[in-house]
Amino acid sequence: MKLTGSNYIGSKASHTGTVQFTSSNPTTGENGSLLFTEATQQEISEAVEKASIAYPIFKNISAEKRATFLDEIANQILELGDELFEVCTPETALSRGRLKGERGRTMNQLKLFAQVVREGSWVDARIDLAEPNRAPFAKSDIRQMQIPLGPVGIFGASNFPLAFSVAGGDTASALAAGCPVVVKAHPLHPATSEMIGRAILLAAQKTGMPDGVFSLLQGQSVDVGIGIVRHEKITAIGFTGSFKGGKAIFDEANRRPVPIPVFAEMGSANPVFILPSILKKQNERIAKGLCKSLNMGVGQFCTNPGLIITEKSTDAEAFMSHFKTALEEVQPGVMLSSNIKTNYERGFESLKTNDKIDLAFSSKKTEGVNGVQAHVLSSDVNTFLQDQNLQEEVFGPSTVSIRAENKNDVIEFAKKLEGHLTATIHGEKEELLEYKELVEVLQSKVGRLIFNGYPTGVEVCDAMVHGGPFPSTTAAQTTSVGTGAIKRFARPFCFQDCPSELLPPALKNDNPDSIWRMVDSQWTKDSIKE
Amino acid sequence: MKLTGSNYIGSKASHTGTVQFTSSNPTTGENGSLLFTEATQQEISEAVEKASIAYPIFKNISAEKRATFLDEIANQILELGDELFEVCTPETALSRGRLKGERGRTMNQLKLFAQVVREGSWVDARIDLAEPNRAPFAKSDIRQMQIPLGPVGIFGASNFPLAFSVAGGDTASALAAGCPVVVKAHPLHPATSEMIGRAILLAAQKTGMPDGVFSLLQGQSVDVGIGIVRHEKITAIGFTGSFKGGKAIFDEANRRPVPIPVFAEMGSANPVFILPSILKKQNERIAKGLCKSLNMGVGQFCTNPGLIITEKSTDAEAFMSHFKTALEEVQPGVMLSSNIKTNYERGFESLKTNDKIDLAFSSKKTEGVNGVQAHVLSSDVNTFLQDQNLQEEVFGPSTVSIRAENKNDVIEFAKKLEGHLTATIHGEKEELLEYKELVEVLQSKVGRLIFNGYPTGVEVCDAMVHGGPFPSTTAAQTTSVGTGAIKRFARPFCFQDCPSELLPPALKNDNPDSIWRMVDSQWTKDSIKE
Repeated sequence: MKLTGSNYIGSKASHTGTVQFTSSNPTTGENGSLLFTEATQQEISEAVEKASIAYPIFKNISAEKRATFLDEIANQILELGDELFEVCTPETALSRGRLKGERGRTMNQLKLFAQVVREGSWVDARIDLAEPNRAPFAKSDIRQMQIPLGPVGIFGASNFPLAFSVAGGDTASALAAGCPVVVKAHPLHPATSEMIGRAILLAAQKTGMPDGVFSLLQGQSVDVGIGIVRHEKITAIGFTGSFKGGKAIFDEANRRPVPIPVFAEMGSANPVFILPSILKKQNERIAKGLCKSLNMGVGQFCTNPGLIITEKSTDAEAFMSHFKTALEEVQPGVMLSSNIKTNYERGFESLKTNDKIDLAFSSKKTEGVNGVQAHVLSSDVNTFLQDQNLQEEVFGPSTVSIRAENKNDVIEFAKKLEGHLTATIHGEKEELLEYKELVEVLQSKVGRLIFNGYPTGVEVCDAMVHGGPFPSTTAAQTTSVGTGAIKRFARPFCFQDCPSELLPPALKNDNPDSIWRMVDSQWTKDSIKE
Repeated sequence: MKLTGSNYIGSKASHTGTVQFTSSNPTTGENGSLLFTEATQQEISEAVEKASIAYPIFKNISAEKRATFLDEIANQILELGDELFEVCTPETALSRGRLKGERGRTMNQLKLFAQVVREGSWVDARIDLAEPNRAPFAKSDIRQMQIPLGPVGIFGASNFPLAFSVAGGDTASALAAGCPVVVKAHPLHPATSEMIGRAILLAAQKTGMPDGVFSLLQGQSVDVGIGIVRHEKITAIGFTGSFKGGKAIFDEANRRPVPIPVFAEMGSANPVFILPSILKKQNERIAKGLCKSLNMGVGQFCTNPGLIITEKSTDAEAFMSHFKTALEEVQPGVMLSSNIKTNYERGFESLKTNDKIDLAFSSKKTEGVNGVQAHVLSSDVNTFLQDQNLQEEVFGPSTVSIRAENKNDVIEFAKKLEGHLTATIHGEKEELLEYKELVEVLQSKVGRLIFNGYPTGVEVCDAMVHGGPFPSTTAAQTTSVGTGAIKRFARPFCFQDCPSELLPPALKNDNPDSIWRMVDSQWTKDSIKE
């Protein structure tokens, strides 16, 4: 594929702006050769207007056709072949192996949402039949289903150039819901974004989708993102990234004359609790597991374990010693950009210079402009109880091992946690029951509670919750991974006494797609007899 | 019941503040004899702290017990007997007949949510079973369900002193979800609020609920409401009322260090479209129906029809003439307060003094301090296209009849609508199909689309959507009436590889409550074989 550096306003390549930028190789620091042209406010407006014209058409396209579109996006991404990796690795320093895995995940997400759309029950159809003879008032026929919100703005993430970016989970779920999508590509991988964006456009064309169902906008300054958030025809925002970025978008969206929902996943420190008995018996295994989890993707995962809580004991010391042995062998790798590296090192330094926090041990240092070292710091519960800010995420491969005096200390620490995406507890069955209060407290703090595992590795499935209370997200009532993510981009709508001819298939008596529906309070796949 | 004028911090009566107020009789203007003491910031804090202690207990109470609590609230409200009406009518000027109907609705809502809780499937349980042998990575056991958010603040509404107030739909759905509730009583009916609040507390005591599951705070100044919204342990807000009030709460909630969702239903002008053929054949019937809908509850319904759109014709003239005949017979009644009356008359005057809007005809005037006249104004589509502000709700019994030149004019008008709770179309089947574009456009503007009916009269059922795009609500993705309202007060939570002993009943293999669950992508009530 010959890359152009253009924006794509639906199927139209466009580069009318004057601001240009390039990507930068995180390992060598060299700039990419292709210039990308930042979208102008005029181009943003064109893209959103096109999306808004596409909306009623795309909304009413059959479930089967919409599913075919999603499947075809997956095909077109595969069709990009190895060229995708050849373009992506120099932009991200991510290995071919990692990118191959991520491509698979991205394709699987698209196909999973295609299945959800085909199966059709996600629209939560509810039908209350008329009772014309009810006293004192006749009861109307009332039928509800989820309908797509309208054009959605989606921000690509830096750390997953495929799975949380142009054709990532947000785009897949928004398209699945029936919303046209305007993507703001992440400026750290503009070439990868163009390749994926054009694959989506090709799929749209091949499957007969309306022009404007997808647009790709490039940009390095915040103006492009703000322009999208402010456009009156944008109805929701999907975002994965930093707290600073997500919160700024959330505030901007709430300042609009018509506020819109912002589904921002902003990461967290993902506390890991290791209870005494299991620590005694399995300190080496858990130390190795945590070391691996900490270093996945150079620590650039939203679910990276940034806090580890153990109760003071010789077992805890043994755990740290095994952790040290494991970490000293690690070569963490190169971070995504100099900015991210700088922020990581700044965050680490700020913890390290705290009187109450010590550097325990570190990994090897990685060569390359943005190569980094992984670190384990150590501190105690009291320090963290006194300063809520210490639990803020340091994005990268560092973690703080926190000593608790006893069980009570552990629970007090848990009570003071702010919102995180995940929490993890390692424990033997009996002691987990003893620590039931910890399990209870953590439920009010996170979206996912993991037992005897590691927070990294977010399964894409029906039951996954990748979300959590603020500040881990701006929308704790939703998930950004898993099939539940589709609900973010829809709202309930009801027809009262609507003639059958005007009802969408999901609400017609004959239930043509055989979906699950709630009819007079009973879940059924049956059709309704006239 | 001997009323005290106190706040109720859980079961404890409390009136430590110095600010007092009384209710006022809307018909006579006389003040009530009982003084109510406004809750202090200290009392607000106590109520929320108590709610927060009650939360983990209430959350884990069995579905059956929680349902019994809701049923018992309904019983206790009935037990208040006619005294409830004797207290409420002087505060609201609402007739005994109307209040009796509203009490029935309130009790039915509580019982309906009790059924929803007992049935149990609302928690949307999703289970993905482990696949330990999956390559390249083992798949974990992941189980998701909706869990209650935490303590919720609810604002009583002025216009429905029972059904949208202390034990109204917001309280019923929040308690059903498992959230303790702190109610800010509406200052226009403090005595009614105390009676209902104490009925709830009695029900809580009788059914063994934790103290703090419900608190009632009185107040006339905005400080009480703001104090609730700002409290760090409040996790969501329910509100029904004016745009001004709802938007202020929404902004306040978003300014918190930890923003929380605000489910504010702020009313709307509910446009009614009457298409040509039906207008020709049924202008008298529709005019009478609209006249009745317009005057329900002295026009103080969120779904009051404030805009009527017809195409210019002699039939439209006949319609107006029938409307005039009907309205001139109407004695609208007394509004809820002098403030509401003043705002109504100000809104009407502001429309009337517009050059492009004429007063067409009015009803009789009602005696009493807050007695009002109903009005029908007339204008044209162009005027409304030029000034978006004209479609703002005038809360009370006035409506604007808007002339369109033709079908195209009607659709252009619809396209320019802001968000409303409802829209209504009157049309014969054939012409409805001809106006398919109108049906489509209105779907993006409202939460409920009514055919050949009237917007007032909101059925409490599974399929109802009482909600809509901003500015009709701050949360278009939810409904405030109907069983779907429970979802507002819950969020998805997932357990990964959790020992069975620690799982809530909804997620245990044996499915003890026989609820519908999604197990490995299939909806089923079956248990999972070990």
